[in-house]
Amino acid sequence: MSKNSLQHTITALVENRPGVLARVAGLFARRGFNIESLAVSITDDPTVSRMTIVVGGDAAVLEQITKQLNKLIDVIKVIDYTDMPVVERELAMIKVNAETRNRAEIMQVVDIFRAKIIDISDKTFTIEVTGSGPKVNAMEGLLEPYGIQEMVRTGKIVMMRGNVG
Amino acid sequence: MSKNSLQHTITALVENRPGVLARVAGLFARRGFNIESLAVSITDDPTVSRMTIVVGGDAAVLEQITKQLNKLIDVIKVIDYTDMPVVERELAMIKVNAETRNRAEIMQVVDIFRAKIIDISDKTFTIEVTGSGPKVNAMEGLLEPYGIQEMVRTGKIVMMRGNVG
Repeated sequence: MSKNSLQHTITALVENRPGVLARVAGLFARRGFNIESLAVSITDDPTVSRMTIVVGGDAAVLEQITKQLNKLIDVIKVIDYTDMPVVERELAMIKVNAETRNRAEIMQVVDIFRAKIIDISDKTFTIEVTGSGPKVNAMEGLLEPYGIQEMVRTGKIVMMRGNVG
Repeated sequence: MSKNSLQHTITALVENRPGVLARVAGLFARRGFNIESLAVSITDDPTVSRMTIVVGGDAAVLEQITKQLNKLIDVIKVIDYTDMPVVERELAMIKVNAETRNRAEIMQVVDIFRAKIIDISDKTFTIEVTGSGPKVNAMEGLLEPYGIQEMVRTGKIVMMRGNVG
């Protein structure tokens, strides 16, 4: 999920109203762009939502989409973070088989990744991990041999480094 | 963001293809439902995405929407987690003013919430916090007096407790 020439990260500040998401998603769909991940939630102003969109595709076409996004009703501001200095994070929960004989080993992986075990049953651990996409992928890879029952990821969110808003 | 009678959490497993998100979002929009938060990302199977949708509104209408979702092309499975025993988490990044005289105080708040400072400038801290919606709200409230420059949240993701997938 690191920046390669084909992956773009765009943020849209939008009015928190029914239909906005459908219009934004429709714009990408009509151009055949697949949204790889999307995180939408309120901001410090509850009338405003912030969407973080990760898409793969051609940069020139994406620039057109960004321009069209800016013209949509209820879209306040669009920022392309692709080549900016950002902090990026996502959150994942992974439910992994945890037989008694494997528990110590899994707990070591959890420690190394500064992850947390947030639920436990007689057969499973549910693990919370935050970090960049590649970190989450690495954690997933290390847990795979034990048997992943379920995984859910939030998708990436980004913020500019430093003072700039 | 805890369960009240008007807030629902739905998960949809969908094929990872252009247009799926637009169709799902369109369904909610046509009924006038506002999506409060949405997190979409790949699962352990990269051809399948998982959407976690938080919506407010009438339970009976939402049940109809859930049924219609199940009939959509590319929708594999829909689960309403509203009354289920789940672990829920979201991730937020908060950029807060951090004057020299306030830094120790802010760092105490960060410690108490087991949050992390992930970026620093001469005037700001950027803080990463994970937890339930109310925990993120509480953190936001405690940082507000210093001046929040920017906040971005992933929206909630959920997973069933215990062994069940």
